[in-house]
Amino acid sequence: MVTVHEPTTASTKIWGSSVQAANDEAFRRLVEADPWVIDVRPARDVLPGYRDNLVLTSGAPMPWRAYTGGQREALIGGALFEGLATDREDAIAKFTDGSIEVGACHDYNAVGSLAGIYTASMPVFVVENRTHGNVGFCNFYEGKEPRRLNYGCYDEGVHERLEHVNTVLAPVVGEAIRRRGGIALKPMIARALRMGDEVHSRNAAASLLFNREILPSILDMIENSVPSVRETMLHLAENDYFFLRLSMAASKTSADAMSVPGSTLVSAMAFSCRGFAIKLAGLGDTWFEGPPPIHEGKLFPGHTEDEITWMGGESPITETVGLGGFAQACALSLQDYQGGSPEVMIERNREMYAITHGENTTYRIPLFGFRGTPTGIDARKVLDTSVLPVMDVGLAGRDGGQIGAGVIRAPRECFVRALDEHGRRYGQS
Amino acid sequence: MVTVHEPTTASTKIWGSSVQAANDEAFRRLVEADPWVIDVRPARDVLPGYRDNLVLTSGAPMPWRAYTGGQREALIGGALFEGLATDREDAIAKFTDGSIEVGACHDYNAVGSLAGIYTASMPVFVVENRTHGNVGFCNFYEGKEPRRLNYGCYDEGVHERLEHVNTVLAPVVGEAIRRRGGIALKPMIARALRMGDEVHSRNAAASLLFNREILPSILDMIENSVPSVRETMLHLAENDYFFLRLSMAASKTSADAMSVPGSTLVSAMAFSCRGFAIKLAGLGDTWFEGPPPIHEGKLFPGHTEDEITWMGGESPITETVGLGGFAQACALSLQDYQGGSPEVMIERNREMYAITHGENTTYRIPLFGFRGTPTGIDARKVLDTSVLPVMDVGLAGRDGGQIGAGVIRAPRECFVRALDEHGRRYGQS
Repeated sequence: MVTVHEPTTASTKIWGSSVQAANDEAFRRLVEADPWVIDVRPARDVLPGYRDNLVLTSGAPMPWRAYTGGQREALIGGALFEGLATDREDAIAKFTDGSIEVGACHDYNAVGSLAGIYTASMPVFVVENRTHGNVGFCNFYEGKEPRRLNYGCYDEGVHERLEHVNTVLAPVVGEAIRRRGGIALKPMIARALRMGDEVHSRNAAASLLFNREILPSILDMIENSVPSVRETMLHLAENDYFFLRLSMAASKTSADAMSVPGSTLVSAMAFSCRGFAIKLAGLGDTWFEGPPPIHEGKLFPGHTEDEITWMGGESPITETVGLGGFAQACALSLQDYQGGSPEVMIERNREMYAITHGENTTYRIPLFGFRGTPTGIDARKVLDTSVLPVMDVGLAGRDGGQIGAGVIRAPRECFVRALDEHGRRYGQS
Repeated sequence: MVTVHEPTTASTKIWGSSVQAANDEAFRRLVEADPWVIDVRPARDVLPGYRDNLVLTSGAPMPWRAYTGGQREALIGGALFEGLATDREDAIAKFTDGSIEVGACHDYNAVGSLAGIYTASMPVFVVENRTHGNVGFCNFYEGKEPRRLNYGCYDEGVHERLEHVNTVLAPVVGEAIRRRGGIALKPMIARALRMGDEVHSRNAAASLLFNREILPSILDMIENSVPSVRETMLHLAENDYFFLRLSMAASKTSADAMSVPGSTLVSAMAFSCRGFAIKLAGLGDTWFEGPPPIHEGKLFPGHTEDEITWMGGESPITETVGLGGFAQACALSLQDYQGGSPEVMIERNREMYAITHGENTTYRIPLFGFRGTPTGIDARKVLDTSVLPVMDVGLAGRDGGQIGAGVIRAPRECFVRALDEHGRRYGQS
């Protein structure tokens, strides 16, 4: 059962009516957002302020020297892929002297999957929030191969697959989207929730629904002999994760609309190799950092717990808007992939109602009688209940590559720090 | 909770070990069946013993004069569609004098959706059970329009849509299937159960999966300028029920493999305007009839309970093999369509374990921790527990057309009669 938790700690000081009004407004903006994918373009052409020597990665911004392990390798791989350096050593030297720059995805209205590497030539989905006018971005899924740049790997195979995205898949998908005049993502996500997805760790239905949506364009394009259409469609048909990047961009574009002074609702969650971080809708672009997330997972055969490493991740933007872990009761077959039992997944999902502002008006859970997903994480409720936000994620291995999947929990420290700053900024409203 | 019911009535007499062995074998054959769709052909070319003047319909065989209401109208519509009569009166005269013949779908290895009309020219899916070698058939979904021949309607619109199936859709789908060398249906059904379908009243995911499966053929066919491909693919993309006929044919082909002397497992369930009927795996082609099913439904706006009419239905072949109502915990979003709550649907699904021989080895329920669906209805358990098999169905209106959806229960009388005959045939083993 869902218990409504009343404030019991010092945070009662920020349970005033003006915060409540700000949260109502932030929540309203979140659930009214209407993300449409309208184009596919190279990052350099559409991400605001992009420079050719810029490589983006997941998490709160950090200087180059702070990146370690797989996330550092991923940045190096990005530089090599983009031809910004001749070899690993050259890349390290150039990152060190600043001739290759590191940036944080969120600062460019983008979100990164795992390490979340963006380089200038990488195509991104351009998603427009037609209610509020803001735009967000996400780049493409690299494919099923466990060795991927966003899991800290870079080699000839990784290079080829990224090149294939750039030159084959992205141009076709982009043209298909443009020929449709853009595609509304929210109805597709809502439908996928009825079809066993939570559109974070499971996107099987959403990917099929997207393929169906572009079908009329694709048929036109084949008739007009547009190149690579066949190859693209066969690739899409095989990749159940294709939609994740659209789900992430839709979520980012929705969450960015939440900005309302005074609000204690979470507007972003992300992590880097250093730790987990959140933003609040009432505190602009400031990140509030904590230690790495708490995890519970299922590893692919042949891997062990001590291999798990953190190399970044911004896909928790989906949980931020009431999807992923906050809709996992829609996607119980994930028990196969990330472990756990249906009972645990259902209970976890229900638990999230205790820390959210409201119930989503579009994203609904069949198992809960179409109750809206728990939406709009309230930092105050997280502290008062000690229920930590849950996220469905892929797990990366120390030596790069995906080694499993599981759930993580955001650490309490982020919420403490965010509310401390909220108190300083807004006083005890 | 699932309760295992021990025999408590007179039917204990047929709880002997030879019946148990027969049921084990029938169950094994059912779950080992491997249905593949291999072709699409006109009924006249592939249904065994088909004649050009034959019209098939759902339920246990009856003489022409026994058909009433919507089912009688559907037979007349079938005759007119096939050009066997010039008008309604002519059709009635010819049915009456036997120059147009009426047959029962099951007698021709076919299954009918609702009234289940087959005529000679209608294309059917040819489904082969690659484990046991038998073949089964089902014709095509007419489309979303509530006025359909299988719901007792016949007019110019119905005629055009059926003609469209014959001349446009079926040839393209057939060629796509042949070019794939046949398509295995069981993995697709198993996957659809993870994606919110129970492949009786909900086929949204399975239809998309089928579209994906034929995609490589479709791309070839477009490149080779095969006509009507575009039209067909756009039609398929819009019709979430397309797969039902494949699910029915797969189920029929699987259930037909169950024939084992002495078995008390149900091998078919169907109804006509007169009543509900079942077959047992141990009693060959004999139908055991009872009154019409017991129902509980949700009507489309503007319709009332007293309009509900029975005009046939053989889609309960899906429940016979552990799908549909026996997998409804996979498809909780059906609550929207057919009424009920998730709790009721889950409890109904669990209840079916009390009357089935075993758990399906391929079809599994994520919500139940991937427990196999309750499979192989044992007539003895139905009588002993008084739990009646549940089915998800569309509801037809007195004046033709679909007016809602809901669940039905098979009447107890069918099981009493079947076990009486079993006792006569096999004694008290």
